[in-house]
Amino acid sequence: MIAGIDIGGTTSKIGLVQEGRVLRQVRISTTGHADDHAFADALAQAVRQLCIQEGSPAIEAVGIGAPNANQFTGIIEMAPNLPWKHDVPLARMMQDRLGAPAVLGNDANAAALGEWRYGAGQGFDDLLVVTIGTGVGSGFIVNGQLVLGSAGNAGELGHMTIVVDGRLCTCGRKGCLETYVSIRGMRQTYAELADDLDVLKEEGVKCIADAAHRGDQAALRTFEETVRWLAIGLANAVAVTGPRRVVLFGGIVRSGELLLAPLKRAFQVALLNIYQGRVDITVSALADDDAALLGAAALATTLTRT
Amino acid sequence: MIAGIDIGGTTSKIGLVQEGRVLRQVRISTTGHADDHAFADALAQAVRQLCIQEGSPAIEAVGIGAPNANQFTGIIEMAPNLPWKHDVPLARMMQDRLGAPAVLGNDANAAALGEWRYGAGQGFDDLLVVTIGTGVGSGFIVNGQLVLGSAGNAGELGHMTIVVDGRLCTCGRKGCLETYVSIRGMRQTYAELADDLDVLKEEGVKCIADAAHRGDQAALRTFEETVRWLAIGLANAVAVTGPRRVVLFGGIVRSGELLLAPLKRAFQVALLNIYQGRVDITVSALADDDAALLGAAALATTLTRT
Repeated sequence: MIAGIDIGGTTSKIGLVQEGRVLRQVRISTTGHADDHAFADALAQAVRQLCIQEGSPAIEAVGIGAPNANQFTGIIEMAPNLPWKHDVPLARMMQDRLGAPAVLGNDANAAALGEWRYGAGQGFDDLLVVTIGTGVGSGFIVNGQLVLGSAGNAGELGHMTIVVDGRLCTCGRKGCLETYVSIRGMRQTYAELADDLDVLKEEGVKCIADAAHRGDQAALRTFEETVRWLAIGLANAVAVTGPRRVVLFGGIVRSGELLLAPLKRAFQVALLNIYQGRVDITVSALADDDAALLGAAALATTLTRT
Repeated sequence: MIAGIDIGGTTSKIGLVQEGRVLRQVRISTTGHADDHAFADALAQAVRQLCIQEGSPAIEAVGIGAPNANQFTGIIEMAPNLPWKHDVPLARMMQDRLGAPAVLGNDANAAALGEWRYGAGQGFDDLLVVTIGTGVGSGFIVNGQLVLGSAGNAGELGHMTIVVDGRLCTCGRKGCLETYVSIRGMRQTYAELADDLDVLKEEGVKCIADAAHRGDQAALRTFEETVRWLAIGLANAVAVTGPRRVVLFGGIVRSGELLLAPLKRAFQVALLNIYQGRVDITVSALADDDAALLGAAALATTLTRT
């Protein structure tokens, strides 16, 4: 039995995971705690309550996915989207509170491990998992190992420069892939293409997808442009690490004919010839609600493998 | 004692390598042989002669670096710059002729292994080696392993799209990094910027460097633009695999103040914040004449490590 914890900017999820299934889960607010210690107390309390509800005496390990997490040190480093601007050694803090070994990892890397161990990436020792949401996260499996890099949080495809001097990114640089293909990026693309911005009154990109289905030209163009950037970004990643499969996760990629079908075609064209026909794109096999927890739990499985 | 073989488009080098030193070497023409079997015969004959000259009874292993080489299959796959357009199973062909195990690998990956085992990359388990010549080659070390990818020849930074719909590349795609930062790319940049193309009467980029030293504005701008593209390309690679060191190889990078010094500054600016100050750039520590052979020999050392 593993406790999986997924730290988000507003909400954090806590779950009990066994053999690739989420048995039970609960959410708590990430904000509004006195400090990071109080937050860690609340997380530990949630784990204990889930154990009681499940009738489970104890957990073997804790896996924690979080933004800006350094897997080598177990520290969340100055995460811009979390309430604490200082370094938070959350792995040690949870280990102390729960008496079980804890692994903290980058949330996108956790998602990649989750797909690899339990989802659409099973059996692929060279794999790329890309999560498209507010931003673009990614995790790379190479030679059957998660790519951590020297700083413990490598695999930032979303911050690959795709347009020199392009759109300003939240990271402070310009032209990052995520400024074009994320929810934020797609909304900006639509805003640049449309005469009438009424479509954007709702949040997210469902409003753009709905408009595209109605034949709105700016919305259709928005999907075309997104496909184009994403195909190039994925092909660039393939040129570097040579995965055999790309798994996509996130609401946007479930837009079917608007995104996935044209993306698969554009991706094959964008690939370097030696990879054409040798890499496929598929959509996550994990339930949206479980994926982050399974990924966090998968981090804990690295304890016994490295 | 390892036989290292480096297959080039016009010339191939054969050498005997022991403990990271090239003891003896010879060159033969890659072209002009009746077929690939006759070429393999000539390579084997060269190895045997070197052994006789060295007074060495036998070799332990053969390492072969070649363009378009698949390290998993030992096959050179349809290399556009070699005389044989079909698949050439050179690892097996050399093994049969020399009676020693042979490893064939991508020449850029061989260079990376050479720097890692014997050069400026020693001790770095997360490393990127970039060779800038007619094109741009690269090899990635991640978690202490060469990144081969599912097709056995990953690590093609030169074919990362850096400008969407940019310059036409020899690979048939557009905007690849190597169309901007290679010898060919720099000459094209100069041609686009200069009113007077007399500078380009000589081959290579030394003529551009000489012009820059004379204060030629187009030549100075050519180096500035090259630095800008290369810094972004390297930063993109760092975002994916997170190396702690980048080793550059090739005549261009020895242009000192014109390229390396401004590149080091531009690279730090181009890096995602979590990597700033954590990754350095350095120039190859291997002699130009030995590097390819040491790299090929380093491929053979993977025999005992995997």
